[in-house]
Amino acid sequence: MDFVTPPVGAPRTIALVGKYQSREIGDALIALSEYLHTRGMAVFVEQETAAALGRNGAIYPGMVCDFDEIGANADLALVLGGDGTMLGAARRLARHGVPLVGINQGRLGFMTDIARKDILVHMDDLLAGRFQPEERMLLDAEILRSGAVIARNLALNDIVVDKGAIGRMIECALCIDGEFICNLFADGLIVATPTGSTAYALAANGPILHPRLTGIALVPLCPHALTNRPVVVDEHVTIEIIINRATDPRVHFDGQTTQDLAPGDSIRLKRSQYTVCFLHPPGYSYFSMLRQKLQWGERPVDQHQ
Amino acid sequence: MDFVTPPVGAPRTIALVGKYQSREIGDALIALSEYLHTRGMAVFVEQETAAALGRNGAIYPGMVCDFDEIGANADLALVLGGDGTMLGAARRLARHGVPLVGINQGRLGFMTDIARKDILVHMDDLLAGRFQPEERMLLDAEILRSGAVIARNLALNDIVVDKGAIGRMIECALCIDGEFICNLFADGLIVATPTGSTAYALAANGPILHPRLTGIALVPLCPHALTNRPVVVDEHVTIEIIINRATDPRVHFDGQTTQDLAPGDSIRLKRSQYTVCFLHPPGYSYFSMLRQKLQWGERPVDQHQ
Amino acid sequence: MDFVTPPVGAPRTIALVGKYQSREIGDALIALSEYLHTRGMAVFVEQETAAALGRNGAIYPGMVCDFDEIGANADLALVLGGDGTMLGAARRLARHGVPLVGINQGRLGFMTDIARKDILVHMDDLLAGRFQPEERMLLDAEILRSGAVIARNLALNDIVVDKGAIGRMIECALCIDGEFICNLFADGLIVATPTGSTAYALAANGPILHPRLTGIALVPLCPHALTNRPVVVDEHVTIEIIINRATDPRVHFDGQTTQDLAPGDSIRLKRSQYTVCFLHPPGYSYFSMLRQKLQWGERPVDQHQ
Amino acid sequence: MDFVTPPVGAPRTIALVGKYQSREIGDALIALSEYLHTRGMAVFVEQETAAALGRNGAIYPGMVCDFDEIGANADLALVLGGDGTMLGAARRLARHGVPLVGINQGRLGFMTDIARKDILVHMDDLLAGRFQPEERMLLDAEILRSGAVIARNLALNDIVVDKGAIGRMIECALCIDGEFICNLFADGLIVATPTGSTAYALAANGPILHPRLTGIALVPLCPHALTNRPVVVDEHVTIEIIINRATDPRVHFDGQTTQDLAPGDSIRLKRSQYTVCFLHPPGYSYFSMLRQKLQWGERPVDQHQ
Repeated sequence: MDFVTPPVGAPRTIALVGKYQSREIGDALIALSEYLHTRGMAVFVEQETAAALGRNGAIYPGMVCDFDEIGANADLALVLGGDGTMLGAARRLARHGVPLVGINQGRLGFMTDIARKDILVHMDDLLAGRFQPEERMLLDAEILRSGAVIARNLALNDIVVDKGAIGRMIECALCIDGEFICNLFADGLIVATPTGSTAYALAANGPILHPRLTGIALVPLCPHALTNRPVVVDEHVTIEIIINRATDPRVHFDGQTTQDLAPGDSIRLKRSQYTVCFLHPPGYSYFSMLRQKLQWGERPVDQHQ
Repeated sequence: MDFVTPPVGAPRTIALVGKYQSREIGDALIALSEYLHTRGMAVFVEQETAAALGRNGAIYPGMVCDFDEIGANADLALVLGGDGTMLGAARRLARHGVPLVGINQGRLGFMTDIARKDILVHMDDLLAGRFQPEERMLLDAEILRSGAVIARNLALNDIVVDKGAIGRMIECALCIDGEFICNLFADGLIVATPTGSTAYALAANGPILHPRLTGIALVPLCPHALTNRPVVVDEHVTIEIIINRATDPRVHFDGQTTQDLAPGDSIRLKRSQYTVCFLHPPGYSYFSMLRQKLQWGERPVDQHQ
Repeated sequence: MDFVTPPVGAPRTIALVGKYQSREIGDALIALSEYLHTRGMAVFVEQETAAALGRNGAIYPGMVCDFDEIGANADLALVLGGDGTMLGAARRLARHGVPLVGINQGRLGFMTDIARKDILVHMDDLLAGRFQPEERMLLDAEILRSGAVIARNLALNDIVVDKGAIGRMIECALCIDGEFICNLFADGLIVATPTGSTAYALAANGPILHPRLTGIALVPLCPHALTNRPVVVDEHVTIEIIINRATDPRVHFDGQTTQDLAPGDSIRLKRSQYTVCFLHPPGYSYFSMLRQKLQWGERPVDQHQ
Repeated sequence: MDFVTPPVGAPRTIALVGKYQSREIGDALIALSEYLHTRGMAVFVEQETAAALGRNGAIYPGMVCDFDEIGANADLALVLGGDGTMLGAARRLARHGVPLVGINQGRLGFMTDIARKDILVHMDDLLAGRFQPEERMLLDAEILRSGAVIARNLALNDIVVDKGAIGRMIECALCIDGEFICNLFADGLIVATPTGSTAYALAANGPILHPRLTGIALVPLCPHALTNRPVVVDEHVTIEIIINRATDPRVHFDGQTTQDLAPGDSIRLKRSQYTVCFLHPPGYSYFSMLRQKLQWGERPVDQHQ
């Protein structure tokens, strides 16, 4: 399988995507739209973002359009919000190969690495195509019931099968490339990409996977057996999770979309043929971001080198 | 870099390697040597193995020789012992590309997947070249003091830097590809291959890495900062660990060879150019072995599929 | 506060409680009832147990009655089933101080330590009052909404506040003895007794508390902050959990009874004034049971002592 | 057994103890000594502290004396340094019942809760006996070889048995109150008090024990068996650790004193008859300290209450 690599270069058309319902970002979006216009860019504003701004969808000089139009036309998308906003934009734009730039309103996220106050500082680099591209893999899942696919979705962070609200446990069989691996008695199972390894999977005691690794982490949630430990498999596998017993099973995509399951259903996952491309400002470092977010030890003044 | 793939086919020359000092394996080795001779094989017996048998090094019809001679001549090596015996043989034969077959005396290991009592059962498959090859990556480490390399070694499982016997902590800087990642205050740091991920690193709360992943796990030992979690990086990185402060620092290769360190020393690690090839009997499955060793849940009789 | 200690001695009146809906235990219950009758015991059969036997509630020579009647009259209760059956019986009989004997159908549980096939072996000891009493603490929780208590329940294992089926996280404030401790962003929080410490809390990375400890474990479920670690507090505290933000919060008692919550609700917990008394056969040891259940290392034959 | 409670009241005689070899605290100690003199206190300076100040042991107006003299005469000891300094002072003064006040040079510790710059602010409260006493339990350990006690020591934080510098594992038998519990194959075993539960044991995945709990945590270091989880036992037990197999076993007291062991040795531990009394400034809260040290979530502005 060939993974699609999005083009990166000096952009001509820029889309703006914001956190739905957040009024705080209105002024920022409008200012940005105007600024980009003065720089000669064509500006697209994602329609739900525009609607949330409460102007009947009109943001002069930006053109309001949906994710498919953005996908077809934009050279990159500026995403204002937090990591959750990035996840939503990534899932919707992945098949179009539009690179994303994450701009954070509050404190920096794992994916939104530009502070809103610094956005203009970085504009020259961005418009000159000097941003650093970083590919991130996605997961692609089909839900099967009685042999038929009843749903399908992508995830940039993780696909989580869990017990829902009732009952204490889910019992499911894990298969990899058609081979039975084990029966899992647990609250659920997280299947995470490297991007998702610093999100929910980390809270569930999973390892951090560097984005260049292209592995997939299988992290059980409160497994009944203490030997059911996180496992990392390579990107070429097909993972199948078969619900054997559960009263209220669910599957969640990036913690944003939920689908009810029933015993006998199975979730078939593999690496998506699409990747998402994040554009980082010059000097960006994944580990430097991680060190800051996780408050890892800084280099002491007096260290030997 | 090209990784060297050892040849696999119907063997003509077979080496025997046993657990040093273990008298129990003497009869097994001699019987095996005689059996292989009757099957027309040339048989080499590793010299320390032979010496331990207490026959002045003579095991008719096997020829006694050292690891380099085995490396130059043998088509494969039968290793009798436990996982530790495999580790030692792997480090010594890796550069020669001799595939290894692990035969266990007691209960099966993670690497020694043939029970001694079953060895003859598998002989036809083995001699006909029907064993299943599986490549395992190794780590290659240089110890640097004042800029000069003072030691170098391979590891199939792991390279562990730790505090030694005195003092409660080691303070070291971790760098990847020349970039400072963090300062670690801990009992030590395990750098593990997928093969090593089910050994010491697992006890230290590291993830299990499937052997096909070719990632490297960095697992801190009792880190002072609770956010210093296991990290998995890709196989192409160069990892450097610089000892900043410690009273008795050491580095261990596969838990079998130890080297004293001093503050200011650094350990530079990367994937070895060599790989080890394990030969498994037909029907072998990594996950099936894991399920048995870790006593993961078996498939229930009444499960939906 | 004085904790109520149930009396233990040679019993005259024995109650039988079985796992609801389990037909397999029917014959065992009836045989036990008849046997106890021949030994001169008065036998009470819990009414749902009797109903499940499908004899219109009549089990000659046992008298069918409810938990309150059992509580008022029985000297002890024989509970046939698994740990779940014990939990249910314990919560219902705790206020009456009726000691419980756990008889397991399948493999032994943490609380049901007599195999069904061995029950007659132990009868002489039991009827002579030679069983070993062991007190277990319970938790008592009130759910408060707008200052009023809307529900109250006991738990022998644990009281779990969690996020329910929707949304990724619950945000709640933890207070102890009226003091704010921290805000928790997590899937939920387990409050476990020593008895519950080997159940769900163990799967969530909590410590094992010996039953004589009388401490209470607070074990967060997938906390967002990696420093939110399990905490054990003494038995005299009042714990309050205030739901700040959640879309579908719930509270679960021993994983058997669930109550919906709403933001603003609080759960106020403390040690119950009641204890449950388990009766163990002579020679019982908590650690021996644990060693067997968790497959801890046995003493080797050749060990130094 | 009765635990000895040290008296707390308005002090007349105050001892000063500092971090050995630390020149930075010299001025602080001298200023404090002079200040206390002006307030009418008799001032004792611990002799190694005084020696480290480089004045031939003379610190006018303080009287230089050893820990036994301090123990016999001082109403309380002011300890300047970090948590390590407190540990040393606590072990030496425990049998004398002298309460300790911890003053930190750098950032606050778990035990040293007064910043040096704030010490004068708190003096009126301290000298008026308005500090809040908090008792902390200690552990008392005997090392036995061939049935004879070869060493004995106290620990305020923890007693750690470990594998030393060579070899990968220690094999030891754990007994509680004379009963065999399990064989442990691990890097070692931490036996921690509640005070020590936030130190080394926390890094080894142990639970946090509130100081009022008086339990003892047994936290294995990298146990070979994944089911060897932290266990908390009550304060009345006698714990025995018997070294079965190890190449370089050691036992460490508070990480400050180390004793070599040999196979066959055993370590017998129980709660010490002594306790240490910490004096905290008015308003001190254990959980508030913990929240700050572990950076737990603060109460949000908009929370429901």
